[in-house]
Amino acid sequence: MFITIEGGDGAGKTTLITRLDQKIYQETGRRTIRTREPGGVPIAESIRKIILDRNNTKMDPRTEALLYASARRQHLVEVVMPAIEQGKVVICDRFVDSSLAYQGHARGLGIQKVWEINRFATEDCMPDLTLYLDIDPAAGLDRIAANEQREVNRLDLEGMNFHKLVREGYREVVEMFPDRIKVLDAHVEPDTLEEVAWAILKKKLLKKE
Amino acid sequence: MFITIEGGDGAGKTTLITRLDQKIYQETGRRTIRTREPGGVPIAESIRKIILDRNNTKMDPRTEALLYASARRQHLVEVVMPAIEQGKVVICDRFVDSSLAYQGHARGLGIQKVWEINRFATEDCMPDLTLYLDIDPAAGLDRIAANEQREVNRLDLEGMNFHKLVREGYREVVEMFPDRIKVLDAHVEPDTLEEVAWAILKKKLLKKE
Repeated sequence: MFITIEGGDGAGKTTLITRLDQKIYQETGRRTIRTREPGGVPIAESIRKIILDRNNTKMDPRTEALLYASARRQHLVEVVMPAIEQGKVVICDRFVDSSLAYQGHARGLGIQKVWEINRFATEDCMPDLTLYLDIDPAAGLDRIAANEQREVNRLDLEGMNFHKLVREGYREVVEMFPDRIKVLDAHVEPDTLEEVAWAILKKKLLKKE
Repeated sequence: MFITIEGGDGAGKTTLITRLDQKIYQETGRRTIRTREPGGVPIAESIRKIILDRNNTKMDPRTEALLYASARRQHLVEVVMPAIEQGKVVICDRFVDSSLAYQGHARGLGIQKVWEINRFATEDCMPDLTLYLDIDPAAGLDRIAANEQREVNRLDLEGMNFHKLVREGYREVVEMFPDRIKVLDAHVEPDTLEEVAWAILKKKLLKKE
């Protein structure tokens, strides 16, 4: 089973994944494969470095979209596909929908065009369930600013307008995949978010078994 | 004006480009922008390193195709497009056709699919002229083996069968773009190859002025 968590920066993806990971183990005895994009395997981590390097100010939006797709492909082939085949539960922090919202909409490349190169990358291996954590960008960025452990990367340097566009993009993506993506209000407390997420996930996990 | 030189390894692309570069200056007084793919600008050079790294044995063919397309995009935006706009002559060692022959045909991804992701990368900025240096792979690899200065990369480690498929791929690509690509027999001496290439290039240069 393949689950992805999506959302703007500061929406609480990492915290939710840690909690769901424990919850799944508690409730089902199953260990999940927890992973993230871009990265997760050496080739994809090398690509990640190029994408997030703050010195790469000249990066063209199409280069960026293609780099994300290439890292996605490698991670999918080396981590996600084998795990799914072995019947494991994979929880991945970001996937195709991030590219659609960030590069497709916020960078202005067009969601449909970015979707096409991602279909090349994924060969239609898509999540069974995606939880989209919806948050007002200002609230998300406030949370990031409060988190001192987090290293600032190239995409964090984008202005508020960019993050608003990302949210707009996610809304379009949700309309594209209404069955797969569930929208969760991420302004709530972590306990509440976990509860809501687990209620959805539980159904899916039991149905799938 | 945008010229690309294509062909399997050891076809003599580098030698021909050096000669054409000088010839164009001699005959027209114009300095060319000589460049190569993948690479040519810092972001694309970082991508090149990942592509050619001999340790990246797990690289999936689709990852490879997307990485080439991303390096191509960045090089196009930073080097080729501005030069064309300034009316310069750009000679590039490899371009889209390499991806079609190597990843599309030899790696078995399908020429049409690789063409689609490359259209995303190029936005249809295509060469005015492409010289394809056609050589029997055995002859090409013999030349490479004799060249001690050349460092062996990940793609050089492919066997003879792969290089035969590359040649097959190039032939299909030539059929796709009969007006743009001219096929040159690369088994001849460098002087002869230069002569044939210059005869074609000259017409194009004069027509374009």
